[in-house]
Amino acid sequence: MPFDSHATFEALRARIAAFADEREWRRFHTPRNLLLALMSEVGEAAEVLRWQGDAEPAVPEAERGAWADELADVAIMLIRLADVSGVDLPTAVVSKLARAAEKYPAERFRGSSRKYDR
Amino acid sequence: MPFDSHATFEALRARIAAFADEREWRRFHTPRNLLLALMSEVGEAAEVLRWQGDAEPAVPEAERGAWADELADVAIMLIRLADVSGVDLPTAVVSKLARAAEKYPAERFRGSSRKYDR
Amino acid sequence: MPFDSHATFEALRARIAAFADEREWRRFHTPRNLLLALMSEVGEAAEVLRWQGDAEPAVPEAERGAWADELADVAIMLIRLADVSGVDLPTAVVSKLARAAEKYPAERFRGSSRKYDR
Amino acid sequence: MPFDSHATFEALRARIAAFADEREWRRFHTPRNLLLALMSEVGEAAEVLRWQGDAEPAVPEAERGAWADELADVAIMLIRLADVSGVDLPTAVVSKLARAAEKYPAERFRGSSRKYDR
Repeated sequence: MPFDSHATFEALRARIAAFADEREWRRFHTPRNLLLALMSEVGEAAEVLRWQGDAEPAVPEAERGAWADELADVAIMLIRLADVSGVDLPTAVVSKLARAAEKYPAERFRGSSRKYDR
Repeated sequence: MPFDSHATFEALRARIAAFADEREWRRFHTPRNLLLALMSEVGEAAEVLRWQGDAEPAVPEAERGAWADELADVAIMLIRLADVSGVDLPTAVVSKLARAAEKYPAERFRGSSRKYDR
Repeated sequence: MPFDSHATFEALRARIAAFADEREWRRFHTPRNLLLALMSEVGEAAEVLRWQGDAEPAVPEAERGAWADELADVAIMLIRLADVSGVDLPTAVVSKLARAAEKYPAERFRGSSRKYDR
Repeated sequence: MPFDSHATFEALRARIAAFADEREWRRFHTPRNLLLALMSEVGEAAEVLRWQGDAEPAVPEAERGAWADELADVAIMLIRLADVSGVDLPTAVVSKLARAAEKYPAERFRGSSRKYDR
């Protein structure tokens, strides 16, 4: 099965879990350890953009590979964190989006920056 | 189509993009804005676990719903950030895992905490 | 003694420690708990700036009080974290600046964005 | 003047500002750039503790120097961020502590984990 943009969350979750299991790393993968690891990966992503200002393109051409890698690291830690803490991530995402759709009706918030003006 | 653990990344990416488009929020969704938003969501996840120590269960029973919501918010910002910055997230994840498998061969790192001992 | 911009780190460290001691909160203040708390405070600061773009002023007038409070929270967690993990923060800062001065000699880096261009 | 634990915030703020001015880095030091830089430094601190669990000592002996450096980097970015965004950090800290003292009266919260039990 090709892994590409049509990969399911479940396939990636299973692949990441298998990676950890083959190395017997489960005992290191507690929720708090993984949350700190997630933070360190977000920090590496921030390192790529920190001095860029709002320049376009936001991600410098020379950094595109590094940027994709940093986002991948964040995703891996997030998927693993959800897995070990019993959260079905896609279900949680869809549930959250449904509530956000009620909270921010498109007809009232269209073109509006109210949400973004706090 | 039911959204569940078998949802594809692509389906979620498209759904999140449609949510933003319906509200004409694209102009707020620059990579740096979304990275700061991602950080604020990671901070909310940290708020749930911060005083827990390594207690089991790591996520208190009363917080399980809030925890799933926080991880969903992190996922939504991450998927959107990857989208607007031109990163195909599942492809990047699989590519990163393939390189990690070479860097940490299972036979050499099995049961070992070397990686985790720095 | 007035607390103002001439307060010493030591005076603030002692005041924060006294605050925790009076409430017998020392046992909650482990390095990892405090690091997660620091992350959650940085996340709240990010919440203030996330949708601002590079607009000037970066901190909206209506948010100035909230912004000062968020930075104060980050500072309190950082000072407490340094305290419980045995780091003399001002000494560490001065030591780091001295090494940075060697690494980035002013005459070679003046007006240059090399550091910032990676 | 010796810089040690009795250094004032003001002395460190001025020293960090002079460091940036000597290199003409002011234009890179916008609030959002510095906030992203702060996140990347917090991420490096998280990297030191991420796989430790609640082991004692929380900071491994071999990592003590690196740990002090990471906290120094966080402090430098925070002090600079407060400076360029017009926040007098020690004043903000003392103001926040005064309000926290009212919110959590010692006699009611002493020995109690209520705050930490959410």
